[in-house]
Amino acid sequence: MDPFESIRCFFEPKSVAVAGVSTDPDKMGSIIFANLRENVSRGLLKASVYALNPAHRKIGHFRCYPSVQSLPRVPELLIIAVPVSLTLPVVREAAESGVRAAIIVTSGFAEAGRKDLDADLVDLASRSGMRILGPNTIGLLDTRSGVDSLFLRPTKLLPGGRKVVSLLKPRRGAVAVITQSGHLGVTISEELAADRIGIRALVGTGNQTDVSVEELIGYFANDDQTKVIAVYLEGVRDGSRFLRESAKAAKKKPVIVLKVGKTGAGARAALTHTSSMAGDYQVYQAAFRQAGLIEVADIEGLVDACVAFSMLPPLSKKRVVILTNAGGVGAIAADEAQRLGLDIAQMKETTARRLRTKFSRSTFSSTAALANPIDLTASASTSEFVEMTDSLLKLDDYDAALLLPTHQTPAIDYDISARLSEVILGSGKPVCVCVIGRSDLATRLNGDFLRRGILCLPTPERAVHALWDVYSYSTRRAKPSPWANAREAEVVRKSGSAAETLAQPDIRRLLTAYGIAQPRSVVITSIPDFRKAGGVDFPVACKLLSTGLIHKTEAGAVILDISNKKSLASAYSKLKAIAKERDLPFQGVLVQEMVKGGVEIILGSTRNPVFGPTILFGFGGIYTELTRDYALGIAPLNTWEAREMIAGSRLSPVLKGYRGGPVVELGELAKLVSRFSRILVENPSVKEIEINPLIATRERFYAVDTRAFVAK
Amino acid sequence: MDPFESIRCFFEPKSVAVAGVSTDPDKMGSIIFANLRENVSRGLLKASVYALNPAHRKIGHFRCYPSVQSLPRVPELLIIAVPVSLTLPVVREAAESGVRAAIIVTSGFAEAGRKDLDADLVDLASRSGMRILGPNTIGLLDTRSGVDSLFLRPTKLLPGGRKVVSLLKPRRGAVAVITQSGHLGVTISEELAADRIGIRALVGTGNQTDVSVEELIGYFANDDQTKVIAVYLEGVRDGSRFLRESAKAAKKKPVIVLKVGKTGAGARAALTHTSSMAGDYQVYQAAFRQAGLIEVADIEGLVDACVAFSMLPPLSKKRVVILTNAGGVGAIAADEAQRLGLDIAQMKETTARRLRTKFSRSTFSSTAALANPIDLTASASTSEFVEMTDSLLKLDDYDAALLLPTHQTPAIDYDISARLSEVILGSGKPVCVCVIGRSDLATRLNGDFLRRGILCLPTPERAVHALWDVYSYSTRRAKPSPWANAREAEVVRKSGSAAETLAQPDIRRLLTAYGIAQPRSVVITSIPDFRKAGGVDFPVACKLLSTGLIHKTEAGAVILDISNKKSLASAYSKLKAIAKERDLPFQGVLVQEMVKGGVEIILGSTRNPVFGPTILFGFGGIYTELTRDYALGIAPLNTWEAREMIAGSRLSPVLKGYRGGPVVELGELAKLVSRFSRILVENPSVKEIEINPLIATRERFYAVDTRAFVAK
Repeated sequence: MDPFESIRCFFEPKSVAVAGVSTDPDKMGSIIFANLRENVSRGLLKASVYALNPAHRKIGHFRCYPSVQSLPRVPELLIIAVPVSLTLPVVREAAESGVRAAIIVTSGFAEAGRKDLDADLVDLASRSGMRILGPNTIGLLDTRSGVDSLFLRPTKLLPGGRKVVSLLKPRRGAVAVITQSGHLGVTISEELAADRIGIRALVGTGNQTDVSVEELIGYFANDDQTKVIAVYLEGVRDGSRFLRESAKAAKKKPVIVLKVGKTGAGARAALTHTSSMAGDYQVYQAAFRQAGLIEVADIEGLVDACVAFSMLPPLSKKRVVILTNAGGVGAIAADEAQRLGLDIAQMKETTARRLRTKFSRSTFSSTAALANPIDLTASASTSEFVEMTDSLLKLDDYDAALLLPTHQTPAIDYDISARLSEVILGSGKPVCVCVIGRSDLATRLNGDFLRRGILCLPTPERAVHALWDVYSYSTRRAKPSPWANAREAEVVRKSGSAAETLAQPDIRRLLTAYGIAQPRSVVITSIPDFRKAGGVDFPVACKLLSTGLIHKTEAGAVILDISNKKSLASAYSKLKAIAKERDLPFQGVLVQEMVKGGVEIILGSTRNPVFGPTILFGFGGIYTELTRDYALGIAPLNTWEAREMIAGSRLSPVLKGYRGGPVVELGELAKLVSRFSRILVENPSVKEIEINPLIATRERFYAVDTRAFVAK
Repeated sequence: MDPFESIRCFFEPKSVAVAGVSTDPDKMGSIIFANLRENVSRGLLKASVYALNPAHRKIGHFRCYPSVQSLPRVPELLIIAVPVSLTLPVVREAAESGVRAAIIVTSGFAEAGRKDLDADLVDLASRSGMRILGPNTIGLLDTRSGVDSLFLRPTKLLPGGRKVVSLLKPRRGAVAVITQSGHLGVTISEELAADRIGIRALVGTGNQTDVSVEELIGYFANDDQTKVIAVYLEGVRDGSRFLRESAKAAKKKPVIVLKVGKTGAGARAALTHTSSMAGDYQVYQAAFRQAGLIEVADIEGLVDACVAFSMLPPLSKKRVVILTNAGGVGAIAADEAQRLGLDIAQMKETTARRLRTKFSRSTFSSTAALANPIDLTASASTSEFVEMTDSLLKLDDYDAALLLPTHQTPAIDYDISARLSEVILGSGKPVCVCVIGRSDLATRLNGDFLRRGILCLPTPERAVHALWDVYSYSTRRAKPSPWANAREAEVVRKSGSAAETLAQPDIRRLLTAYGIAQPRSVVITSIPDFRKAGGVDFPVACKLLSTGLIHKTEAGAVILDISNKKSLASAYSKLKAIAKERDLPFQGVLVQEMVKGGVEIILGSTRNPVFGPTILFGFGGIYTELTRDYALGIAPLNTWEAREMIAGSRLSPVLKGYRGGPVVELGELAKLVSRFSRILVENPSVKEIEINPLIATRERFYAVDTRAFVAK
């Protein structure tokens, strides 16, 4: 069965009704109705379209119905644009009548402080099975079926009464735009249209009472007409579904995401806007990485990536050649390419020699630097630029090219766009052209390249970013999928006591169950206990055990390097005195064998409200706070993902043997991290667990200090 | 006397000659001559203009002269556009005839591998006193005097024979553009023209055989007509002059810099292009910071900053209010503003209450979130947007505003640009408007705001960056100037031996001269030496002294925490054995009192080929490599600059007391760093000196381990 069957009605309804159509043509409902009728008359929309408003019998030439029940048939899709006070009764009637999908464009819900209204909608949707998109959304525009709930007019009047285009019509194409801000979605679609790129659909999710970003990603992943998915994201509701759907989608097609709510102020604004709960940005980034999404930094980056993926063939290797007839832009492009990680490899001497021979007749050959970037200088003619491009694209040395033809020089003619385009399309390689400038000629060249199907961007930096995005998708696509589901194990249930802190023996039991060793140790409440227990050898460390004492080191409650019984006795007395002095309950002293000479790691797991259990990996011990450097992952992590996470941390070089330290067996460490990542997934009562330090020697690992918290 | 007198002739010559004018109108010399004649006929250029070419007696209607000497007068400025093989004879004749300034647009010099030709030009310039701009440059365009050596034609022909504008004419204005890439300078001027911003002049420096970027910065700093200086920089020749001129300029007007050559590949391209020696990027960044320059990340950032500084009043505080009628762009703007460091403060409850009362009659008041960003939602009308803007700009709560009026909503009319502009200009506050979109209406609104003198940028991210640049300039301007000059002291002259490593006693003498203490120590070559010397107390550290042994710790040649004579004796034997085992010369053992419990710092100084002595400050001891985090400065640093550098390091929080560590007296540390920064400046023979660790306790500092190298 199609898991997205229930939302298909939004995109391909057999009948549509609009509630809130009015005699005032400027009202949202009227605009939507007019747009739908227009699509019917153009033959685009095949559905029956009805107007609803109890106050009128006719709107223009069209009959107007008082209610859903009075319609000649139950519409599959209902678009609701009535005032907020009337919305719920209409939704209720629709649900009861058997409407299958409703788009609520009306605002004034949770985003305006009325969370109760959103709760009612959630309730209605779940009880009736009618799917709801919104409220507080522009809804959707489907360029294939002609469904269109955008309440924006394509033209406006200038003061003199002249009409001017106020909204570029979206083109029909293959980019699905999913957006939590309607306006931004419209802007993206307009920018794409200006670059001659069409959209498959534009969907605003609004307050996400029912249909969510994650569900839509899944829908478009399965949609054959969709080649690229672009997402403007403020926050997701169901983190694990998001991860699951995104990872599946990214296997099939590029999913590009622009995330807002990276900082406090942004998150605040996102909250106000669609009442989404914005999680911690770093956790989102971890999720994007794990799912294989392409995160872009800004609106321009989002649009450029959509255009690049729409126009370019795949790029699985990263050797890029840069050709220019003006040094500055070449240098800028090379700089940015290098920074991102593209390979701006120098030309092989044999290749350079061949090219030099070939172009020896040209005037430019004397001054052109056959390096990379290749600068043909201002004297290069159109023919020379085109021929050099042709030669370069035929080389096996490069996988892609960035062309920066400066049209301002006297020797470059307008036909460079036609001639270069032919060579580029003939090569089959991914090539980006960059035409800088604001003159009429620049605008024409830009348009001409795009019209011929050549990717053309306005600055070298943006061109390089687009190539990088296309390259990086191929590397992400190669990733194995994240773990589908983890088994539920629950090694530890609430540990009897009401205390939030999990007792050390319970932690030991938990870690043992996941194959994580601790140094040999014994808890003593008197000196003779140590001898009696046996099995723990000097040198040892002593730690004061006392509920509520969390930062042991700072309190002086950890004494290291105890090498004999005498020192042990003195340490024991000292720790007991500290407990007394600080008025802490004395629950004994943990005597633990010292682990020396390894790398100190912090390995922690906590629950994120959106994504559930997350894993933190980084510098351990005193380095933790000092470096504040860590990698994050969404649990559970398979071994491959754990290894990726380890590689992404700045601790990674240290693990490879640092200043004579041990070379850690990374495969074994990744397995341990993977096992550890299942703890919170499989033990719902554990809220948080941290090992710091986990000491890694060559291939052995010891959880030297641990803490864990369970639900009260 | 005016220090820039000698380059004034480039900008305000009484007479100009062009060498290389030809009967072919497409040749560079012909285009330049035609442009100059055009400027004369328009009354812009007041100078006499002559054509030079021995092959012709007339070019069009104009007389053509065979040589400089045959001219009726010696021209003050000569523009040379002859083939590379003829350039040097022409330059030589000009210098001998008394020409004061020459622009050489011809290429084929060092950038094409002919460094010898550039050397000849350097030689000619220095012997004759004639100033040279170039070679390999577009030269300059001065919008006030009409001097113009740009060999680019303003129109080109389309295939049908129709003329099209290929270069937007620069407008007359106040932005001085200094560029090491001619094409990029032209692009910047064109982008500015499209935004209705004029330039004071555009100067390409080409290969910088004589006139340099740093000299031009000084020139425009002193030029009253220049309000903003924009620099495209690949590399500077004279780092200290650059620092000095830039710092002086930045006190008077904003200096914006786009640096290329950040990475290997970029630096390579820069080298090929103008044969500049690109120094290490981080050192450049330190210089920019110290001089108070505004560094931008890309071409768009450079143009946007020029436009912003041209249009906005100063912004000395950073509380910004964001107003929008579409949530997404508001959230994006707030996010980016927060990330940069602007203050997107929440509205005070009293203020929000007042505004709520004032706007209670409006429809939007119920749903508008009076937070920051303020989202008036899609229902807001033009009047509501304008009135809210007016109210916000009148509040003392905010220093600047970012307005994001979404024109796509039905309730926003075209007259929003006129009405908002009036309110903005009336307020006197810095305000940036952002009109997103690609429709005709968007283009018109954009143009209308700019025409009315309102800063208007195409994305919220770019708008926020522009506001941040304007704000950050005011904070930089407040900085004290860097030290003008340091005295020459030379405490250490070449220390007799031919060894590059400076001996420990010499280092001690050097550090003592600059008030930097070392722990008490003694060098022993036998155990009894220690008792005899006296004055060094246990616990001590022992270090093997041996020329050529640099990484002592890794070699096991440092033994710490020796608390009695017996341990000392054993350490001594061990170190002696290491020397023997490694076949190193044994030069004794340094016995040094242990310094415990302080913060470990690395403080180093080395010579950068462009900027001279630089200072490195960061995590010391084993943290140095682990964190790889450091701050850089250009020596000498005054106390204020040293303190800034310390504050810019990630070590800074550690110095404020970390995990029970000492709180370091930062004023004292800054004084020490400032003294240290003079060592390489005042001792030319010292190539490099490093203290690692410098151990800082509360207010005492000990150079625990040091090394220094002198010129052989």
